[in-house]
Amino acid sequence: MIPAGFLFSAVNAGIKSPEHKGLDMGLIYCDKDASVAGVFTANQIKAAPVLIGMDLVKTGRSRCIVVNSGNANACTGTKGIEDARAVTAAVADRLGVGHNEVIPLSTGVIGIGLPVERMLSKVEELKKGLGDDIHAFSRSIMTTDTYPKISFRQAGNAKVLGFAKGAGMIAPNMATTLAVVLTDAVIDPQVLDNIIRKSVIDTFNAISIDGDTSTNDTLIALASGYVQEDVSTVEIEIHDVIQELAMMIVRDGEGATKVVEILVTGTINDSDAKTAAMSVANSLLVKTALFGCDPNWGRIIAAAGYSSVHIQPEEIEITINGYAVVRYGVEADGFDENTLNDILKNKEISITISLGNGSGRFKAFTTDLSYKYVEINSAYRT
Amino acid sequence: MIPAGFLFSAVNAGIKSPEHKGLDMGLIYCDKDASVAGVFTANQIKAAPVLIGMDLVKTGRSRCIVVNSGNANACTGTKGIEDARAVTAAVADRLGVGHNEVIPLSTGVIGIGLPVERMLSKVEELKKGLGDDIHAFSRSIMTTDTYPKISFRQAGNAKVLGFAKGAGMIAPNMATTLAVVLTDAVIDPQVLDNIIRKSVIDTFNAISIDGDTSTNDTLIALASGYVQEDVSTVEIEIHDVIQELAMMIVRDGEGATKVVEILVTGTINDSDAKTAAMSVANSLLVKTALFGCDPNWGRIIAAAGYSSVHIQPEEIEITINGYAVVRYGVEADGFDENTLNDILKNKEISITISLGNGSGRFKAFTTDLSYKYVEINSAYRT
Repeated sequence: MIPAGFLFSAVNAGIKSPEHKGLDMGLIYCDKDASVAGVFTANQIKAAPVLIGMDLVKTGRSRCIVVNSGNANACTGTKGIEDARAVTAAVADRLGVGHNEVIPLSTGVIGIGLPVERMLSKVEELKKGLGDDIHAFSRSIMTTDTYPKISFRQAGNAKVLGFAKGAGMIAPNMATTLAVVLTDAVIDPQVLDNIIRKSVIDTFNAISIDGDTSTNDTLIALASGYVQEDVSTVEIEIHDVIQELAMMIVRDGEGATKVVEILVTGTINDSDAKTAAMSVANSLLVKTALFGCDPNWGRIIAAAGYSSVHIQPEEIEITINGYAVVRYGVEADGFDENTLNDILKNKEISITISLGNGSGRFKAFTTDLSYKYVEINSAYRT
Repeated sequence: MIPAGFLFSAVNAGIKSPEHKGLDMGLIYCDKDASVAGVFTANQIKAAPVLIGMDLVKTGRSRCIVVNSGNANACTGTKGIEDARAVTAAVADRLGVGHNEVIPLSTGVIGIGLPVERMLSKVEELKKGLGDDIHAFSRSIMTTDTYPKISFRQAGNAKVLGFAKGAGMIAPNMATTLAVVLTDAVIDPQVLDNIIRKSVIDTFNAISIDGDTSTNDTLIALASGYVQEDVSTVEIEIHDVIQELAMMIVRDGEGATKVVEILVTGTINDSDAKTAAMSVANSLLVKTALFGCDPNWGRIIAAAGYSSVHIQPEEIEITINGYAVVRYGVEADGFDENTLNDILKNKEISITISLGNGSGRFKAFTTDLSYKYVEINSAYRT
């Protein structure tokens, strides 16, 4: 399942602390010049690796991605840029590629300088370890994720392989979370850029765990160009890989006990549908009610109502897992709260909200909000 | 402390269920025509009492407010309007005032019809009970509040008395939560309207518990006109009463263990400062970090960064309870995370965020997010 040309490696560099023993630094190497494209966080506070990566993808060509978890290298000023460049330069020198052909990706705590010395001392080990262990690599970018996120699709003769990390600070209107998509298809950088920009619209940009958009969100795609394949075939599979990674992130949302799909239809345009869907997806009252299987549908309609989308209350219809909950803006005939309580015990919840007769529609993906979310996020760093 | 002309009453009407024994229906009666003004929820889904109240305050005169907790009478369609009118008409008839002189206020679960018969059967008891028991009245509007919210100020010779309920579904850009402000000063309805609209800007509209704006938010002010007093004197005290009620709501925020003040300065205008402050105030990652005393300031800067306000990262300065945390967009010289961890053990947290040299500023008030919030809101109705 590895696209031709790519090698992987992962080590422990003690990035969280010298005592930390998990994999926290990883490398992807391509044995020839690959096309590269990327999408980056919409947060105005951009981490050093984001600023560097945004610049490097403009060249259209790359050879390496060096990743670390445990430290975001964000809000670290010019020192952060220098630190990231020191690491990418060391990787480039050791592998005999250009300094501008190594893209850094970081995730973890904001505001602390990278432990550059510890990372530099591991570059040789990273190089020596290059091989086919994609599982080790996938673990090197995990933070609060409970499992690694890998997705694979065959695209005709070409292969598409993706990695991502979750599991908090996930929100709409971001470029994406930390993710890498590799293919051995021949794809021009501009085409690759176009494919990933389209692919994130209904995938990474349709998910929300907690409404917080990170400083480090990045998706990098590399195409090694070993295999001639129809681009539209490859595009479909790249989209599928990105979609699967996005859903893995939702399923592994911090503390999540349910996966929740929110389909809004009937708006004037898709953008309005997205605004309403995300308003419901990010409502704490909706998310806690879902956690508690509380058949309190009023919270859903209220969250749609305070979004900026124009709403005619009497046109609203809501179903949950196919069960009619609201019609004409009021409780549906025959609605029974015990029935809805039972339905909400499912781990997969599908909410449809029709707001009128327009052709706009958008499907958002989110989770419930549990005690565990609070536990994880009240003790992340200390 | 009761403004001249007003009488109060509260009963148990079994509104949550026939078995429910707490006070859940209340009445305020003015023995002469009072000036009236109101501000109402910005949610497009407006409860029946909101729609009725918005209409009634236009007359400028009122005699009664009839309140209930346990049922919001929202998303109840035309039946909801008829139900509310049946209750206000019965109150009006019994008290000998006009049908358009009784304003209904409801709070509680959305989507269930009012138990009109039970409420009508209590109107006589409400009338008979009219007196000076403001504490009983204040308890009749409580839902998940842990204590009643009453505020009083002397305004020269006049008195100002306010009531409010919290404690969830509290968010910015709303008119306000459920609140009543009474004064015996002589105030024209238009002037009263102007006073409360100005008063909510930096009070009710500056607080957020969970980012959810209710379908029922209403603030009604009545002025009985018994006392001649300088309007500017009364205005100051009305603002103070509203401010105190708003802060009581924050302190009693569902599951809150801390009160958090977020002052944003240096933006181009106050509106931008409010946008940035509310982005931080509503960030789950910030709120859970505050709950856990986690010195993870990166979450604050990230939340400012994903607001729509233009930010120059290198100009950001952050202090927490006076302690310098961020300067020039990076960790402040001498910052120590153990010191910040100790500071965050305070129950009152004051965060200042300077975003530049502009004159815009806004102070928002919020709480942390605890296990208890999840507990309360995952089991509200069932």
